[in-house]
Amino acid sequence: MTDLGVQDAAAKADHMVNPASLAASMIDERAPDIVEALNDMPPELAVAVLLHLPPDRAIEVLDQPGLEREPELITLMPRTVAAKLLAGVSADRLADVFRQVKEPHCSELLDLLDPGTRVNIRRLLEYPKDTAGSIMTTEFASVPSTYTVGQTLDYIRHVESSRETVYAIYVLDPLSKKLVKTITLRRLITGDPEAQVLSVARPGRLITATPLMDREDVARLISKYDLLAVPVVDHGRVIGIVTVDDVIDAIVQESTEDVQKFGGMAAINEPYMEVGFWQMMKKRGGWLCALFLSEMLTASAMQGYEGELEKAIVLTLFIPLIMSSGGNSGSQATSLLIRALALRELEIKDWWHVALREVPNGLALGTMLGLVGIVRISLWQYLGFYDYGEHWLLIALTVGVALIGIVLFGSLTGSMLPFILQRIGFDPASASAPFVATLVDVTGLVIYFTVASIILRGTLL
Amino acid sequence: MTDLGVQDAAAKADHMVNPASLAASMIDERAPDIVEALNDMPPELAVAVLLHLPPDRAIEVLDQPGLEREPELITLMPRTVAAKLLAGVSADRLADVFRQVKEPHCSELLDLLDPGTRVNIRRLLEYPKDTAGSIMTTEFASVPSTYTVGQTLDYIRHVESSRETVYAIYVLDPLSKKLVKTITLRRLITGDPEAQVLSVARPGRLITATPLMDREDVARLISKYDLLAVPVVDHGRVIGIVTVDDVIDAIVQESTEDVQKFGGMAAINEPYMEVGFWQMMKKRGGWLCALFLSEMLTASAMQGYEGELEKAIVLTLFIPLIMSSGGNSGSQATSLLIRALALRELEIKDWWHVALREVPNGLALGTMLGLVGIVRISLWQYLGFYDYGEHWLLIALTVGVALIGIVLFGSLTGSMLPFILQRIGFDPASASAPFVATLVDVTGLVIYFTVASIILRGTLL
Repeated sequence: MTDLGVQDAAAKADHMVNPASLAASMIDERAPDIVEALNDMPPELAVAVLLHLPPDRAIEVLDQPGLEREPELITLMPRTVAAKLLAGVSADRLADVFRQVKEPHCSELLDLLDPGTRVNIRRLLEYPKDTAGSIMTTEFASVPSTYTVGQTLDYIRHVESSRETVYAIYVLDPLSKKLVKTITLRRLITGDPEAQVLSVARPGRLITATPLMDREDVARLISKYDLLAVPVVDHGRVIGIVTVDDVIDAIVQESTEDVQKFGGMAAINEPYMEVGFWQMMKKRGGWLCALFLSEMLTASAMQGYEGELEKAIVLTLFIPLIMSSGGNSGSQATSLLIRALALRELEIKDWWHVALREVPNGLALGTMLGLVGIVRISLWQYLGFYDYGEHWLLIALTVGVALIGIVLFGSLTGSMLPFILQRIGFDPASASAPFVATLVDVTGLVIYFTVASIILRGTLL
Repeated sequence: MTDLGVQDAAAKADHMVNPASLAASMIDERAPDIVEALNDMPPELAVAVLLHLPPDRAIEVLDQPGLEREPELITLMPRTVAAKLLAGVSADRLADVFRQVKEPHCSELLDLLDPGTRVNIRRLLEYPKDTAGSIMTTEFASVPSTYTVGQTLDYIRHVESSRETVYAIYVLDPLSKKLVKTITLRRLITGDPEAQVLSVARPGRLITATPLMDREDVARLISKYDLLAVPVVDHGRVIGIVTVDDVIDAIVQESTEDVQKFGGMAAINEPYMEVGFWQMMKKRGGWLCALFLSEMLTASAMQGYEGELEKAIVLTLFIPLIMSSGGNSGSQATSLLIRALALRELEIKDWWHVALREVPNGLALGTMLGLVGIVRISLWQYLGFYDYGEHWLLIALTVGVALIGIVLFGSLTGSMLPFILQRIGFDPASASAPFVATLVDVTGLVIYFTVASIILRGTLL
C-alpha cells in the first residue's frame, strides 16, 4: 500500500516520459520499491531513470535480487557508465546476473569489469547451482588476529560501505590467513579498544560451510545457530560468506519448488503471469504425459479383469472411490515424509522406523474408511436408493476389505517413496502426489479385484 | 556431524549419570548443540545438567526455540532457581513456552516471574497465533532523538547483553515516545560521536509492522527490504520487534504446513517420530474421511450410467485413466496458484487473468493427452494386444475428446479453487491435491459418459 506512489509513477510513465523527474520522485524511496517501479517500465525508460539517479542509489538498485531484465538494462547503458556502476554491485549479485546471460553476451558483460572482479566473478560462476559457493558474496570484513579491538573498529568504519555485512567479522591467522574465529560487531563495540580482537570472541567451535554445501544445508546452519552470516571455508581459508537474506530467498525458492514438484510438475521460479505459454507446456506437459503413460497401466490391469467386470458390473461402481482412497492416503504419507526429510528430522537409515509406524497407521485408517464404505452400501441398500443385488452384503464386505488393503498399501508406498528417491540421489520432493497416486492406482485395482475374486467366488464371480 | 560429541555424550547419559561432568563437557558447545543433547535425555537428567551449567549458559539454552519439554524442565527446578533463570530468558521465548502450558500450570509458572515481566508476557500471550504480536520480542534497543551518536553507542554497549538484537536501534521522539527513525549499528559506528543520532539515519520511509499483521507478511517485509528486524508499531509507538531468525522459523513452519495441507491432511508441526498414534489418526483420518465421503459421489454418478456401462463395458477400462488425468492437471494448476498467491505475485482480483490463461493451457494439455490416448488405443488394436471391438475408433475418439474436456476442467478448477478459498477467508494452501482431485473426479465421470453418449449413440450405446 505504502509504495503506491512509486507504482503510480510507473503507471504514468508512458504519458510523462521524463526520466529525470521520475528519478527525482524516487530518490527517497527504498531500493526494493524503486525496483518494483522499474520492473513495470519499458527497458529503455528504466535505463534512463537509472542513469538519472545518483550513482550510489543506482548501484543499490542494481544490487537488488528483485530487479528483472538486469542484463538487458546493463547492455542498454553506455559502456563506461555500466562499468562504473557494475564496479559497485556486490559480487554475489553480479554472479547471479551473469548466470542468466548466455555466451557470447556473458563475456561481453564480463569485459566491463576490472580484471580483479572479473576473475572473482568467473570463479563464482564455476560453482554449481544451489551450492554455498554459488550464493556467497566475496565482500566480507576480515582482520588479522594481531589487531586490537580499536584497530578492528577503525577498519570496520573504513570498509563499512563496501561490505554486504559487517556484523560478522572474520579473524584470520596473520601468516596462514586461515580462519581463527568469528566475532560479532555487537561484542566488538563492548570490548576494550586496547585489548586484542580475540578477547571479544565467544568460546565454542567455528560454524562454517564448505563451497559445495547445498544451500538448504547452509540455511539450516544459519537458522539453527541464529547467525547473520556463515563463512564459506576452503582449506581453512574464508573464500566468501552467505548472509541471512540470501538464505531467506533460498528457503522461499526451495519451498516453492517443493510445492510445485509435489503438485506433479517441473519447478517454475518465475511469477505465474510471466511464464510463457510454451514454457508452461514444457513444465506441465512433460510430467502430465509421463503420468498419463504410467496410468495407462490401469487400463491394462482392467483388461485383465474383463471377465469379472462382465459378470459383476456392480464392482465398477466403486473403482473411482477405491482408487482415490489409495491415492489420498499415499499423498498424506508422502507430504509428511517429504517435510521430515527436508527438515532433517529423519535420515535414510530411519526408513524402517517409519515403515513400522505406517503399518498400524495404514491399517487403522483403512479400517475406518472400510467401515464407512460398508455402512454406505448397507444404508443405500436398506433405504432403497440403489439395489446392489442379492449379494449386497458380500459386495460391501469386498469394498471394506479392499479399502483396508489399499489404504495400507498407499500409506506404505507414500512413506517409503521419499526415502527411495533420496537414496538414489533425487530430491524427495519429486515424490509428487500424482506420482504416488499413479503407483497406488494400478496396485489398488489388483487388490480390489483379488479381494473380490476371493469373497465373491461362487456367488457373483 | 560436528555435534557428534554432544550426541554421544547424551547417548552415554544412562551409564554415566553424572550431571556435573556432563555439564562440564558441554560448557564450550554452542547452545543449539547443548539443546540437542538435552532433548535426548530423560527430563530429570536434563534439569540436573542445566543446573550444573553456569547460569548465563543455562539461560542461553532455555532461550533456544529448539528446546523441547521446556515447561516440564522448569517445573522440575527449585522455584528460586527457576525464577532466577527465567528472568534472563527473552520475552518472546517465554511467551512461546507459556503458550504451550495449560491453566492452572501457566499461572503457576507466571508467578515465578517478576511483576513487570509477568504483565509483559500476559500481554504477548493475548496476541492471536501467527501474528506479529505473538512472535515479537519486547527487548529492543531504543534511544530518544536528542541523543548524540556517542551517547547512543554508550547506551548500546550498556544494554548489549540484554537485547535480542542491537543491530537495529529505534530512535523515538523524546516527548511522545513515537518512532521517528530506525538506525543501524553499522551506520552508527561510522558516525561522528558528537553529531545527533539522526545524522546517521538513512533517508526513506520507515518500514514497520502492526501487531496483528500475519507473520507471513512480516517475513515478506523483512525479506523484501533485507532487514535484520522490523519494529512492531501500535499507535506510533514501538511495542516490540520481530527479528530475522524468528521469521526464518516462521517461513519454515508455514512451508511445512503448506506441503502437508496440500497433501490433504491437517498440518502437524512436530517431528514425524514424535506425533502420537491418536494425534496422527486425528490429523489424517479427518481429512481422509471427508475426502472419502465426497468421493462417494463418484459411485452415485456411476450408478446413473449403469445402462451405458452394461452396454459398453469397454468404457470402464478407461475410467481410472481419465479420472487421474483430470486430478493431475488440477493438482498442477493448484500448486502453481497456491505459491503465486502465497508470494503475493497475484491477488484475488487477478482471478480472471489466470482463468484466461488456464483455458488455452488446459485445452493444449488436454489435446496432447487426448492424442496420446487415441494413439495408445489404436496401437493396441492394430498390434492385437486387445480387441476393443468393431467401434474401436469411436471409442478412441471418445477417450480423446473426454480427455480434452477433463484436463481443461481440471486446470480451471485447480486454478480457481485457491482464489475461492482465499476469498472466503481460508488459506489457499487448503486447496489440497486430493481435494481438487475429488472435485474433478465426479465431473470427469459426467464429462466422459456425456461424450460417450454423443459419439457412441447408435453404435455401442
